[in-house]
Amino acid sequence: MKSTPVKGTRDYLPKEVEIRDYLQNVIAETYRDAGFVRITTPIIEDAVNLDKSEGGENLNLIFRVLKRGKKLSSALNNENVTEKELSDMGLRYDLTLPLSRYFSNNKNELMTPFKVIQMDRVYRAERPQKGRLREFMQCDIDIIGNDSRDAEIELILTTTKALNRVGLKNYTVKINDRRILKSIFSYTGFDDADNEKLAIIFDKLDKIGIDGVKAELEENSFDKNAIDKFIGLFENGSLTLDSIADVCDAEYVNDLKYIIDTVDKASNGTIPVEFTPSLVRGQGYYTGTIFEVAADGYSGAVAGGGRYDNLIGKFLNEDIPAVGFSIGFERIFGILMEQNYAIPDRKKRIAVFYDKDNYADALVYAENLRNEYMVSVIARPKKLGKFLNKLEQNEFDGFAVFGEADGVKLFG
Amino acid sequence: MKSTPVKGTRDYLPKEVEIRDYLQNVIAETYRDAGFVRITTPIIEDAVNLDKSEGGENLNLIFRVLKRGKKLSSALNNENVTEKELSDMGLRYDLTLPLSRYFSNNKNELMTPFKVIQMDRVYRAERPQKGRLREFMQCDIDIIGNDSRDAEIELILTTTKALNRVGLKNYTVKINDRRILKSIFSYTGFDDADNEKLAIIFDKLDKIGIDGVKAELEENSFDKNAIDKFIGLFENGSLTLDSIADVCDAEYVNDLKYIIDTVDKASNGTIPVEFTPSLVRGQGYYTGTIFEVAADGYSGAVAGGGRYDNLIGKFLNEDIPAVGFSIGFERIFGILMEQNYAIPDRKKRIAVFYDKDNYADALVYAENLRNEYMVSVIARPKKLGKFLNKLEQNEFDGFAVFGEADGVKLFG
Repeated sequence: MKSTPVKGTRDYLPKEVEIRDYLQNVIAETYRDAGFVRITTPIIEDAVNLDKSEGGENLNLIFRVLKRGKKLSSALNNENVTEKELSDMGLRYDLTLPLSRYFSNNKNELMTPFKVIQMDRVYRAERPQKGRLREFMQCDIDIIGNDSRDAEIELILTTTKALNRVGLKNYTVKINDRRILKSIFSYTGFDDADNEKLAIIFDKLDKIGIDGVKAELEENSFDKNAIDKFIGLFENGSLTLDSIADVCDAEYVNDLKYIIDTVDKASNGTIPVEFTPSLVRGQGYYTGTIFEVAADGYSGAVAGGGRYDNLIGKFLNEDIPAVGFSIGFERIFGILMEQNYAIPDRKKRIAVFYDKDNYADALVYAENLRNEYMVSVIARPKKLGKFLNKLEQNEFDGFAVFGEADGVKLFG
Repeated sequence: MKSTPVKGTRDYLPKEVEIRDYLQNVIAETYRDAGFVRITTPIIEDAVNLDKSEGGENLNLIFRVLKRGKKLSSALNNENVTEKELSDMGLRYDLTLPLSRYFSNNKNELMTPFKVIQMDRVYRAERPQKGRLREFMQCDIDIIGNDSRDAEIELILTTTKALNRVGLKNYTVKINDRRILKSIFSYTGFDDADNEKLAIIFDKLDKIGIDGVKAELEENSFDKNAIDKFIGLFENGSLTLDSIADVCDAEYVNDLKYIIDTVDKASNGTIPVEFTPSLVRGQGYYTGTIFEVAADGYSGAVAGGGRYDNLIGKFLNEDIPAVGFSIGFERIFGILMEQNYAIPDRKKRIAVFYDKDNYADALVYAENLRNEYMVSVIARPKKLGKFLNKLEQNEFDGFAVFGEADGVKLFG
């Protein structure tokens, strides 16, 4: 039998899980205090829902669950059976699609605006050489049923509060609007049909600079006049909300200004929100505002989200406005572990040693210590000194020998 | 697209998740205070591990994950491709197999005795008409590396403490030993090869009585003399640890007596542990003590476990003693919800209403209230009275209108 976990998944050690649990509790408490309520949905979703969810590249990364029994035999009877015919459900690749399904399934029992927490695992069959996990945790908050930009503001303030409380320092919230992105491409004369391809190239602006973007546009044989007009927008440096006023609808610009100003005011200037016109976000289901959090010194986003006003409508006959913000928990965990994160004020863990003939009494003694300590009852080892070293290495803070008068002794 | 969750899985409503989270925290805290440390393992396991795990009937209930890409095409090129060839991993059906793999994978980083918590989802393709879920939560504690019966005692005391703390009342811990079961069958002259079949029939003793067991043994054409000798054991009523002294090794009897007596002493007589010779537990991997918790008035077990001294040896070249106790969280949750469970001393949840022109200030006001309350900031609705009713129905305890002098008003 195989001792290693399956490719792209991880076993977490006790000291890691202790920190993961603590961080997740801090995030959940922050979200609950902000009036969000938690739901859970199954990890398995109907294949039709997954396949039609406009999840962009993620749709190629779905783990599919094999049909069973008669359904499987009948599929296998088909000579040229396809992957999709062998499976009628799969593991979810995000929490937004299950939430949209959930809302449509349970809307009569839910209050709107529905402010909702999801903290759970998702699955993507990423190529492991990219160093990405195939099973990972996301911490999402979403607001369903509020079409005002106030929802974006609340998500940004609440998500950044959670990031602050877990101890992430020095980050920037980048914000854009899918409609601004479209307006820019359309204004400069590109063909609407090329928007997705253009977005993928423009998204690299941070890495390759405007000259790199220009070169890639030329390599891909886009219209020369459109390229010139597009690059021309940058001749005075980065695009700003003021400099794009002529390029797109004033409503889009004013919406972003309102979000940036209100977050600034409500956070007393502590949360930096930056208009980032080259921000794209991969999912096809976003319809308006998109945002992510970039941690200084780390590439890639630690959180991301946006508005998806049409996704719930795929389940219901009416469109319902919705916007969400997802913390990539594994990124946060990775960054904090690199910084040697320690839980503040952790309850102390001690061992109580017993001898065979006093086990029941030692159990009672240990139980009485549990208001103050985490207490593990352990048979007294023959080599106590060596064992005490092992305890220290394993996050114990001290010990007591049952029956000896001096009680709990803390290490160090 | 389909709004309902896939067959056998459930969406949980906010008020349910609030209670589930609270109960899971109580259980986890109880376990941590008892010196157990939490780990997590992936939900996906290698198919070979699952298939060879001696999980009894559960092995027929495994959800298999379809191979991908070239591996899948190559499997499909085989004309008579089988279910197993289409898949090289599956969803775990319990937490014991993943734990055994985990221990063998990480043992150099772990302390023994390894006292470990797992609280996580497992998957079984149960027939939905049995009212069973296909995705459900188990809360396990295990002790690895302790071959003394003290481990069983600690698991029983810790698990029942968790059950007490979540508010489960009136239950019995049933205990048996697989070796006693085998000794009884062997003593009465049955063929060893029939042990599994015999166990399945004997397991029904509680439901069908000794006459029912006799009838089933006869229907299945077991040896008449063996049946008579077996039934003869019951002529003075139930079997007791004293009455089976001649039937099996004294060690097995003394072990159970030691467990029962020590739990009684350490719990001051509050935890009833009952020798139950017909207790079987389904998994094939159990090697010694087995136990479960039966809640008065509810059929089926709310918790179950036992000793599995050979399972980790399938991964390592040495056998490592191990014993575990698993709370069936869905059973506990179901029972408590039937009893209208309410979270004690829940932090109060209120709404703060704002008007468009004072949103930023209302956010600051709400933030200041969050030490005392969970606070959801909501645009003031046109029909405030009607909306307040909705808040009350949705577990809110009160509200405040930003800008009005009278502050927080609690309902009722």
